[in-house]
Amino acid sequence: MSQMLSEILEQPDVLRRTIEGERDKITKIGDFIRQKEIDVIVLVARGSSDNAALFGRYLLEVTTGIPVSLSAPSVFTLYNAKLRLRRALVIGVSQSGEGVDINLVLERAKESGAFTIGITNEAGSTMARIADETLLIHAGREKSVAATKTYTGQILLFYLLAAAIGDQRLNYHQIPDLTEKALELKGEVQQLAQRYAFMENCVVVGRGMNYGNSYELALKLMETCYVVAERFSSADFFHGPLAIIGRGFPVVFFGPSGVTEQSSIDLLNRLKELHADCLSITNSPHIAELSSNSLLIPEVTDEFLTPIPFIIPAQLFAAYLAEAKGLDPDAPRSLTKVTKTI
Amino acid sequence: MSQMLSEILEQPDVLRRTIEGERDKITKIGDFIRQKEIDVIVLVARGSSDNAALFGRYLLEVTTGIPVSLSAPSVFTLYNAKLRLRRALVIGVSQSGEGVDINLVLERAKESGAFTIGITNEAGSTMARIADETLLIHAGREKSVAATKTYTGQILLFYLLAAAIGDQRLNYHQIPDLTEKALELKGEVQQLAQRYAFMENCVVVGRGMNYGNSYELALKLMETCYVVAERFSSADFFHGPLAIIGRGFPVVFFGPSGVTEQSSIDLLNRLKELHADCLSITNSPHIAELSSNSLLIPEVTDEFLTPIPFIIPAQLFAAYLAEAKGLDPDAPRSLTKVTKTI
Repeated sequence: MSQMLSEILEQPDVLRRTIEGERDKITKIGDFIRQKEIDVIVLVARGSSDNAALFGRYLLEVTTGIPVSLSAPSVFTLYNAKLRLRRALVIGVSQSGEGVDINLVLERAKESGAFTIGITNEAGSTMARIADETLLIHAGREKSVAATKTYTGQILLFYLLAAAIGDQRLNYHQIPDLTEKALELKGEVQQLAQRYAFMENCVVVGRGMNYGNSYELALKLMETCYVVAERFSSADFFHGPLAIIGRGFPVVFFGPSGVTEQSSIDLLNRLKELHADCLSITNSPHIAELSSNSLLIPEVTDEFLTPIPFIIPAQLFAAYLAEAKGLDPDAPRSLTKVTKTI
Repeated sequence: MSQMLSEILEQPDVLRRTIEGERDKITKIGDFIRQKEIDVIVLVARGSSDNAALFGRYLLEVTTGIPVSLSAPSVFTLYNAKLRLRRALVIGVSQSGEGVDINLVLERAKESGAFTIGITNEAGSTMARIADETLLIHAGREKSVAATKTYTGQILLFYLLAAAIGDQRLNYHQIPDLTEKALELKGEVQQLAQRYAFMENCVVVGRGMNYGNSYELALKLMETCYVVAERFSSADFFHGPLAIIGRGFPVVFFGPSGVTEQSSIDLLNRLKELHADCLSITNSPHIAELSSNSLLIPEVTDEFLTPIPFIIPAQLFAAYLAEAKGLDPDAPRSLTKVTKTI
């Protein structure tokens, strides 16, 4: 079994350990933050961590009402700007905690008076030393180049933080069990991946809470399968990119029931007219029916809880598709585990 | 001549008229905003306007020091969130001024106490009625489905606004002349486009002030040429997507001299090792030399002023590549000019 696949299977345990280990600390941090006057939350990350941050952005805005900015690190590292961050909460996200640019942004933010948090898998990392508070993913060392268990760990920590700051009823305790349920699709995904063995391009669509997932699956497909995978929200997709869709063009779709369902249905109907080939990851029988193929996770009923269970079959799909293409998902060409950019 | 090409050629005049018509008003708006205590700027847009906003994000953060958030409209339209925007400046960007979701975000922002600005080409639009202030692109009606003159017009208005708020010495007055110079590449681009007639995928790379351009060229290539075009910053590109690059894979590169030049050189050297096929749009002889092909605009010397002159050969490239592929750039399949999403 590939390292990637074995780490995918560890996720329910990682998520349980992370809730257990971090819940109390995060509740206290939330109490502290709620007493401060925060006008903006800035998230700073790269790669898969940035895709987790993209989810964090939606969750934090919707649950706390504080506007969120996804930081452009080069504003600090190349243009040397000093941002006004007196009333800002700045959150760095990095698996290794050694992203040079991410850590530099955290340092600058602290100098500007921001309260800073690091989300990382490495307690002894530079990020953990710099940040005012550290939220730890309890994933154990991640050996696979393609991040899986740290991605879902980061997402989970955003739930804990949103619940602590926003005082919302987020039932994140259900997520480890729902993740275990989603892993039962393993055999089905393995078989389905064969169908896509010669896929060279595709589009991945997700919206709202699942928008980050569309970026993450596209990244997994690029890293491990060398598929040129575009990622869009269903709304942006109508603004131009729809033109690339011809007969048989593959589209992978994160389609939860809930507030985004109607826009998913509208897009799927349009894609059907264009004879695209749609694979949906969904809990909605209606969306499954509109798709050429689907991976159904009916156990998840709350849209807010879909992102982690929905990325599971997507991760499995990337790992098995790599194998179907004769590639080793643990040894993607040109890549190393820790990427340091400025 | 296609409508798209004829609108591309109008741009120096559009830019001159826009400076002339809006400068005084924007100076006054800037004075007003500087007296307010603004903690965050929120930009809200879709499609090409969103790509212009991506540029606006960098320019405004670097020149004003105020953190900028690129809005996710669904936070308002689908999740019905009420954001704290008392100390926010919210700027909607829409060619037609009729983007339903964009206008809804502006309305909600006003209700939350934000100061709102609309950037549009249509003085009589819904957006112009809603926003506290309107900045007008003086482009005349844009008939081409693929936006060109309104994209550069929007970018220009961000310069005027940044200069007015940030009190920076931005020499935007030079831009219309630099744009005229860039249009002289027309014949060269037309010839070069032939080489890419059978290109099906590509990656477009840009960073910092040219990051929005990478999204915009990718969108033009998707809309008018049906090329599956990915867009990345050179920093993000190292975090995974690099794996899709094999021998002969086409990469289009916005590579200005200035603070991003070293990261461009690092990436180009890596792409050379991988035998990728790089086309650079640049003012740097060194970057041109590292590339398989290049379009050189030596007249632009200030990196901050590169985005508009650099998108000109990119727009021409998309228009001529469509023709080389036997497509009509004015009639992209599946698209209409005004897209209304919620």
